[in-house]
Amino acid sequence: MASTRIVVVGGSAAGPKAAAKARRLDQDAEITIIQKDPDLSMASCGYPYYVGGFFDDRNKLICTPTGVVRDPKFFINAKAITALTSTEATAIDRTARTVAYKDLQTGQTGTLAYDKLVLATGATPFVPPVPGIDLDGITTLQSMRDADTLRKVRDDQTIKSAIVVGGGLIGVETCEALELAGIEVTIVELLPQILAFLDPQLARLVENHVNSKNARVITSNGVAEFLGTDGKLTGVRLQDGTEMPTELAVVAVGVRPNTRLAVDAGLDVGRGIQVNEFMQTSDPDIYAIGDCVEIPNRITGKPVLAPYGDLANLQGRVAGQNVIQGNHARFPGTFQTGICKVFDYTVGATGLSEAAAREAGYDNAVAAVTVALDKPSFMGAKPLIMKVVADAPTGRLLGFQCVGPGDASKRVAIAAMALHGGLTVTDLVNADLPYAPPFSAAIDAFITAAHVLENKMLGRMEGISAAEVKAKLDAGDDFLLLDMRGPDEYEVMRLDVGETLIPLGTLRKRIGELPEDKATPIVCYCKISLRGYEAESILRSVGYTNVKVMEGGILAWPYKKTVAAT
Amino acid sequence: MASTRIVVVGGSAAGPKAAAKARRLDQDAEITIIQKDPDLSMASCGYPYYVGGFFDDRNKLICTPTGVVRDPKFFINAKAITALTSTEATAIDRTARTVAYKDLQTGQTGTLAYDKLVLATGATPFVPPVPGIDLDGITTLQSMRDADTLRKVRDDQTIKSAIVVGGGLIGVETCEALELAGIEVTIVELLPQILAFLDPQLARLVENHVNSKNARVITSNGVAEFLGTDGKLTGVRLQDGTEMPTELAVVAVGVRPNTRLAVDAGLDVGRGIQVNEFMQTSDPDIYAIGDCVEIPNRITGKPVLAPYGDLANLQGRVAGQNVIQGNHARFPGTFQTGICKVFDYTVGATGLSEAAAREAGYDNAVAAVTVALDKPSFMGAKPLIMKVVADAPTGRLLGFQCVGPGDASKRVAIAAMALHGGLTVTDLVNADLPYAPPFSAAIDAFITAAHVLENKMLGRMEGISAAEVKAKLDAGDDFLLLDMRGPDEYEVMRLDVGETLIPLGTLRKRIGELPEDKATPIVCYCKISLRGYEAESILRSVGYTNVKVMEGGILAWPYKKTVAAT
Repeated sequence: MASTRIVVVGGSAAGPKAAAKARRLDQDAEITIIQKDPDLSMASCGYPYYVGGFFDDRNKLICTPTGVVRDPKFFINAKAITALTSTEATAIDRTARTVAYKDLQTGQTGTLAYDKLVLATGATPFVPPVPGIDLDGITTLQSMRDADTLRKVRDDQTIKSAIVVGGGLIGVETCEALELAGIEVTIVELLPQILAFLDPQLARLVENHVNSKNARVITSNGVAEFLGTDGKLTGVRLQDGTEMPTELAVVAVGVRPNTRLAVDAGLDVGRGIQVNEFMQTSDPDIYAIGDCVEIPNRITGKPVLAPYGDLANLQGRVAGQNVIQGNHARFPGTFQTGICKVFDYTVGATGLSEAAAREAGYDNAVAAVTVALDKPSFMGAKPLIMKVVADAPTGRLLGFQCVGPGDASKRVAIAAMALHGGLTVTDLVNADLPYAPPFSAAIDAFITAAHVLENKMLGRMEGISAAEVKAKLDAGDDFLLLDMRGPDEYEVMRLDVGETLIPLGTLRKRIGELPEDKATPIVCYCKISLRGYEAESILRSVGYTNVKVMEGGILAWPYKKTVAAT
Repeated sequence: MASTRIVVVGGSAAGPKAAAKARRLDQDAEITIIQKDPDLSMASCGYPYYVGGFFDDRNKLICTPTGVVRDPKFFINAKAITALTSTEATAIDRTARTVAYKDLQTGQTGTLAYDKLVLATGATPFVPPVPGIDLDGITTLQSMRDADTLRKVRDDQTIKSAIVVGGGLIGVETCEALELAGIEVTIVELLPQILAFLDPQLARLVENHVNSKNARVITSNGVAEFLGTDGKLTGVRLQDGTEMPTELAVVAVGVRPNTRLAVDAGLDVGRGIQVNEFMQTSDPDIYAIGDCVEIPNRITGKPVLAPYGDLANLQGRVAGQNVIQGNHARFPGTFQTGICKVFDYTVGATGLSEAAAREAGYDNAVAAVTVALDKPSFMGAKPLIMKVVADAPTGRLLGFQCVGPGDASKRVAIAAMALHGGLTVTDLVNADLPYAPPFSAAIDAFITAAHVLENKMLGRMEGISAAEVKAKLDAGDDFLLLDMRGPDEYEVMRLDVGETLIPLGTLRKRIGELPEDKATPIVCYCKISLRGYEAESILRSVGYTNVKVMEGGILAWPYKKTVAAT
């Protein structure tokens, strides 16, 4: 029997994974990777950390964990896979089952026959058609070359200020990387918030954190024009007319799937190449994986673009199996789980935000913001600001967001697995997680967040968001705002918006000081709003009928507050 | 209507949680805690960290996160809960619905009437009836007083060596704490391994780690006699006759539920107080929670003792609801998720070990040991040694163990949630976890472990454990042991048991060097056995019929190996 011919177009993440998996299952297959870039298997998610100086050896981005560079020689020796680098796949002939290619260095062309073809063509950064976009000093952070360019900026130390256009995952990672290079960075984001997968309150808390560094965030504004002299970037003009001098601009406004090959070949393509659960395109001999495809969101069922490196690898493993053994490995889709480091914060989410849940038709979605510590305070606890979203009628978890200096990564992972299991809030309130003081509080922060949402769903707690409180304050609404903390805590940090300080321990004795009218609107809070919640219970018990708890307390307040100089 | 009278016996973890939850739901209830110790709400899991010097302020063990000591004054002011400390509950009269108590300081006695009674009587360290057990210098680490005693040992710096009797969670935590106090520590464990929730190979890796510190582990041996002079401990004689001088012994051989009150009152008691899913005992007016109860293991359904601080708190929350609102909150049981820090290692597990699975009747349990990095190598990766156990017929995950210097806590939490969801290995291989280089490799270590188990279950990989390889070597079996790493890696660390080094990249060319007999037993490995697995595939493809992969590679080898001096 002739050996199976597998051709993989794309040599970054998904492609090499598919090729390697196929090889492990069939030592006789002829496997070829066609890769446009000169490099293979680049750890592209690592670029910001190379630029930011977390490590200095560029080779680490293209090495195996034991330090072997993943070049064509490695692929042929270790995996018997032929890798054609600096080579572009130019067309697919589905009838002849061949791929045409062109060597970008020599200009030579040729064709490769396939029995099964895997498209892993990736995505390309979208570059908005803004005047001046071709000036020197404007780049993206998508390729090894981009990483080299920005790393040189770090090493040269001549550039003092930079603009990052776009406040998504890559934008904020790039912001941190450049700030760590000693550069003053401004993120310019067209939307009213950065990190669109977060609901606005949590996004604003992240913006505040960025602003606390040698960096700042401008939202609801875009770049109208890149300004330059002699072909070199000197500044930007924003849509609101502001002009800012800058020597460097990194464009990170998202990526577009590379679908041209697929479209030209007549494959079904939506926003990305369409595939079934086997990662198979509309042509049964052609599979597609990674950033170039669209896959189902596992909650809504709707196709989404999910250009994440981990999913690319998992899809590669699925396709690598199916091209050899026939369709049996399935890829079920995504919860769009994402995470990033933003200076001292970790920012992550899985499933649907509250906004996304409503957009998806979950009209009865409920959500609660909770602040909790990631460890016992005696072990050096750091806070986490979390938001849990669930479907009220079924109690099913829909999504989870977590930001802050604490270990958010673990909690997002926990929530992601809860989504995989289709768990309800009732399941989560008694989750059996690993507890010891170096790793979590006795009740893990994630479980605390589930407790708060359960309390809210059972009507034990009536929550009000910081945004709603802010709106009431701005509108001059008449209501009583009660801070239930101690005077010492109040001295250190407070809202200073007209609140009344009544430490929880004194509340029962001081009920007489409160308005006689039991219908008076009252909002209680504390540092994280546990004492706020206890106050609500006490106030309700003495007859107050309109008491709410400001969710997450002062630590989740994303607006201006008074902080004592230390 | 008269207010509900709630009496809670026990003021450590579960009791105060139940009382506080009851209070939040009913501001009019009369709530009383009867607590034998002088302290309340002690963070007892924090004792080892206080002893080990992770923090110095003893008050942090009994304070709220904002620094308020949780004493009777705090309980009455903040929560309107009466806490009777240094007071022992002596008897329950179920007919009269009263609890008799005795003030341990004044000797005064009295009774308290209850509508609902909550027993949170905890557990007491088992002290084996060994001659000399009453000598000065022998303690446990269960109470604030114990913590004070051992902290004084740290501060005084006069004691040079100590014995820890028992290698369970508390034993290893105590070992670390004392070692950090500058003391040479020996753990003496009766069983053939420490940390019985781990399978032997992983336990042995932890023992090796302990032995690499100023500490050592002796297994399959117990203390036959504590030796002393003038009432003071001077040494121990072990069961094998060895005598060891020591000035301090900490007994940590497990705890026994405090069930006397319940037994005397005629409640159903097994190994612990028996409760239904509402945490209600055989008397509908009496609930029991925390270390004194037995609860179902959620996989086997069998009652187990699970004296964990997190479960105590969760059970307290459940009972606190039910005593006020009637039975509606349920506690579903435990996966016996546990974790501890052991020097630079984190050690955790959830669900069943392979041994526990077989004992529970899972005759078709399959397991695989996998080593993977917790992050990309360029981000300062640390290894994790994992073992996944699943039920072969259904593919359902049964358990997960993880040890090593990497972030095991996150992976155990992920596995715990996978157990909650009843997920299968097929679900896990495509898990959508949060990925960014600061937090995980592109394929998370946990997913890698699932991939390996899936490969094994699908017959793609035939695994052999380190123990089996060691047994074959010890028996002088004739087989070929192939190390697939590079010569540089071999120089740094190797088994040195007669293996042959054939770097994977050269294997295809060197097939001719292998034995002609294709039935020759071959075992392949590398650092973590990914290359070992690739080698197996290559060797099978050229006709070798008896090839196995040593699971986890050299990093999971728990026996002696040659390591180059650095």
